Amino acid sequence: MIKEGDTVQLQDKKNTFFLVVKKGEVFGTHKGNINHDELLKKDYGQTIKTHKGHEFLILRPTLFDIILHGIKRKTQIIYPKDSSYITLKLGITDSMKVLESGVGSGALTIVMANAVKPSGKIYCYEKNEKYIQNAYENLKLAKLEKYVEIKHHDLSEELPEKDFDAAFIDVREPWLYIENIKKALKKGAPIGFLVPTTNQISLTLEALEKNDFIKTEVVELLERHYKPVPDRLRPEDRMVAHTGYLIFAVNS
Amino acid sequence: MIKEGDTVQLQDKKNTFFLVVKKGEVFGTHKGNINHDELLKKDYGQTIKTHKGHEFLILRPTLFDIILHGIKRKTQIIYPKDSSYITLKLGITDSMKVLESGVGSGALTIVMANAVKPSGKIYCYEKNEKYIQNAYENLKLAKLEKYVEIKHHDLSEELPEKDFDAAFIDVREPWLYIENIKKALKKGAPIGFLVPTTNQISLTLEALEKNDFIKTEVVELLERHYKPVPDRLRPEDRMVAHTGYLIFAVNS
Amino acid sequence: MIKEGDTVQLQDKKNTFFLVVKKGEVFGTHKGNINHDELLKKDYGQTIKTHKGHEFLILRPTLFDIILHGIKRKTQIIYPKDSSYITLKLGITDSMKVLESGVGSGALTIVMANAVKPSGKIYCYEKNEKYIQNAYENLKLAKLEKYVEIKHHDLSEELPEKDFDAAFIDVREPWLYIENIKKALKKGAPIGFLVPTTNQISLTLEALEKNDFIKTEVVELLERHYKPVPDRLRPEDRMVAHTGYLIFAVNS
Amino acid sequence: MIKEGDTVQLQDKKNTFFLVVKKGEVFGTHKGNINHDELLKKDYGQTIKTHKGHEFLILRPTLFDIILHGIKRKTQIIYPKDSSYITLKLGITDSMKVLESGVGSGALTIVMANAVKPSGKIYCYEKNEKYIQNAYENLKLAKLEKYVEIKHHDLSEELPEKDFDAAFIDVREPWLYIENIKKALKKGAPIGFLVPTTNQISLTLEALEKNDFIKTEVVELLERHYKPVPDRLRPEDRMVAHTGYLIFAVNS
Repeated sequence: MIKEGDTVQLQDKKNTFFLVVKKGEVFGTHKGNINHDELLKKDYGQTIKTHKGHEFLILRPTLFDIILHGIKRKTQIIYPKDSSYITLKLGITDSMKVLESGVGSGALTIVMANAVKPSGKIYCYEKNEKYIQNAYENLKLAKLEKYVEIKHHDLSEELPEKDFDAAFIDVREPWLYIENIKKALKKGAPIGFLVPTTNQISLTLEALEKNDFIKTEVVELLERHYKPVPDRLRPEDRMVAHTGYLIFAVNS
Repeated sequence: MIKEGDTVQLQDKKNTFFLVVKKGEVFGTHKGNINHDELLKKDYGQTIKTHKGHEFLILRPTLFDIILHGIKRKTQIIYPKDSSYITLKLGITDSMKVLESGVGSGALTIVMANAVKPSGKIYCYEKNEKYIQNAYENLKLAKLEKYVEIKHHDLSEELPEKDFDAAFIDVREPWLYIENIKKALKKGAPIGFLVPTTNQISLTLEALEKNDFIKTEVVELLERHYKPVPDRLRPEDRMVAHTGYLIFAVNS
Repeated sequence: MIKEGDTVQLQDKKNTFFLVVKKGEVFGTHKGNINHDELLKKDYGQTIKTHKGHEFLILRPTLFDIILHGIKRKTQIIYPKDSSYITLKLGITDSMKVLESGVGSGALTIVMANAVKPSGKIYCYEKNEKYIQNAYENLKLAKLEKYVEIKHHDLSEELPEKDFDAAFIDVREPWLYIENIKKALKKGAPIGFLVPTTNQISLTLEALEKNDFIKTEVVELLERHYKPVPDRLRPEDRMVAHTGYLIFAVNS
Repeated sequence: MIKEGDTVQLQDKKNTFFLVVKKGEVFGTHKGNINHDELLKKDYGQTIKTHKGHEFLILRPTLFDIILHGIKRKTQIIYPKDSSYITLKLGITDSMKVLESGVGSGALTIVMANAVKPSGKIYCYEKNEKYIQNAYENLKLAKLEKYVEIKHHDLSEELPEKDFDAAFIDVREPWLYIENIKKALKKGAPIGFLVPTTNQISLTLEALEKNDFIKTEVVELLERHYKPVPDRLRPEDRMVAHTGYLIFAVNS
């Protein structure tokens, strides 16, 4: 049964809405209003009608949907194709202590926080204070805020935590901080980076080499969607051609 | 500290080895032997020498590495680029009850099993009995066997479990079983498929439509690696051009 | 020197204009007017000023530019990445007699007509009469009209010409006409097709097999553009993900 | 009818052979021998039998086939997907005077030489003398040697010809020569480059900017092949992921 505080997804053929259920509230759509109290009598997979009679399917939102459609974006986000790969590649799992910087809108943070449940933690260092509040709100929408600590901190200064099991860095000039980050990483810990340009790749690779990281790799992921029509199957006309290049290495 | 039963990765510049640590055993490499008892005195990130003096870095293996280099393959596997995306797309997380069929070599099972920890479970139905033992062994290497139950079962027959929160199907003719699988899926549950050919996509899409699935999508992921040389950065000459098409939908 | 009747490209940092030079005429732009008579005193590579003093470089337009920016599109066109590949793959060269159907806006026709100069000819069969006049005008812009004959003809009927050295077919249901087209093709002649969907590929392949074509291939070309910034080099954010699949075979 | 000196392609289901027909000669294959005199009685599209009775189809070879299967490679070649695009992009056509450097194995030279017929010419400057003879032989196989002049010349020295209509440069450090090349290019002439690494792109873009080239573009082409099986249509498992990046600009 749906409980107060749940993030619920309302779905019809065309529309997707997200809401956090609170007793007494009303959710308005262009297809009519829904009383939260009605939602509290329902279960996921059931349908609910607006006061105009329009029917929505009630879904438990996946993190994938929350990231793409639910969170408020104050920055370019790391997309699911990349965040899922990063999380598996870095081996993020229960009980790990993970460094992320910056936090941006928290899209990658959500995926990694879900992976360190129930006893791990993501420490985010974000130098741009204005992003922090929004990132926390996005984490709350995903019910993952307790696995994350976001600090207003610049990577050029000594890191407040040590002994990280893994790290992911998404800042403009990561090569400037690799020596400093290394001091807070366990030996053998994997690290990843996202950079949009080839020049940034070259500079990051140089810094990794200089700081004795091993198993360095550069990879990009392309996601191609098809129009799901059985008898006229074809790729979409246009696609996202670039989100960023991923760099991975291991501290040695 | 490394404990008996841990799966450990030994890494030098060129070689990667996996072993499960057992008191009294010896692990042989072409660079010399390592006593397991020595490993039990070490921690991850430290180094260990063979009797010939060759040094290895001791790494805690990521699931990514276990899948690519550790497991025994008796079938074509689902690669990390796909398995990580599938797991996020289906919203696999703690406490979920997930249907997978077939199990193959368990490469996707490992990723999903890690995601349902600590209280969820993956039920795998595999009609080809000869794959089951190998899949269990691969799950043991990843220390995830207790989150998975593999049954010798054909999808054309009534499924032994009901009320699945999500499902992933990787069989030759998935369209034949969609009606049957639907009976075991919760309303609102996401389902995914991997198929190698476009003809299979069309037939699967038709069956999904006929069985009132919604939010149907077809996607493929391409992974492009670069030679990690700072001043001569370029893509690898050749790449894997196709592993499979992914189809996703939601039960309604 | 620029001659009356030449198609001329005017280029500044941002704008590209095409015009056919005619004595006494005036070409208006938002940067001011240019007298054609002034153009006739110039050579390619020189600059010319509008009456407002804005300077344009005078370029001899390439077919590439004419296709992308000069021709009037009444249909989806075949893009340079595909038309250049098709022309080389079919071996289109001087003195060949080539079948094309339909003509569409003539974008491929332009490339193939340029390749059969000076003694070959492209015969286009177009069942949609409304496209023919526009295609002729586009060919005139490219100065290639005399190498092309466009006929209002349906591929299901006997073809007016025989003994073609090569053929390219871009119609909705090519498989319906392959038997008929074969009668007009020389033995050993290559044939190509563009189809947007995978279902059309399968049906075309079946018809080619049934009609004893050999050396069958299916290929698609992806064109990825980069932002040409030396110190921030990166792919464009979005790209054309699909124009069509190309099928090639040889009549045997 | 086939004439002495023709380059002929012999094709069966599996094999492709190229030969230049000469009276009195014998061509040996593992399926038996063919007398050239017999070929001289045949026409393209007909079949011919070896002395062992094995039948070959006689094809007029396309330049595409000659490049991929006929020429002798002493260097990495520029592939048809790139050479066809380059030729269209640079607007190579009848009567143009084109600069190419280096010549390599002549794979691009063949395509451009075919495009400047009958009154244009390709001037190739190659500093590595050992490639020149082989390139000429490859051009002869394609019957295009008279449209090409290959000179043993280093791009760092003054170019022997001037007033080029277009240029294509495929050398290791093109940025070193752009100032020099510019002196031999007509105003408004297009230029192209192929470079394998991103570092080379950046350096070439800088030199182009410094030398006032306009309309700069960077593009790469990916060619994806499918297994041509109607009811099991799918991409090939592996593909060529990288041949080179193409850079284009216009002299201003």
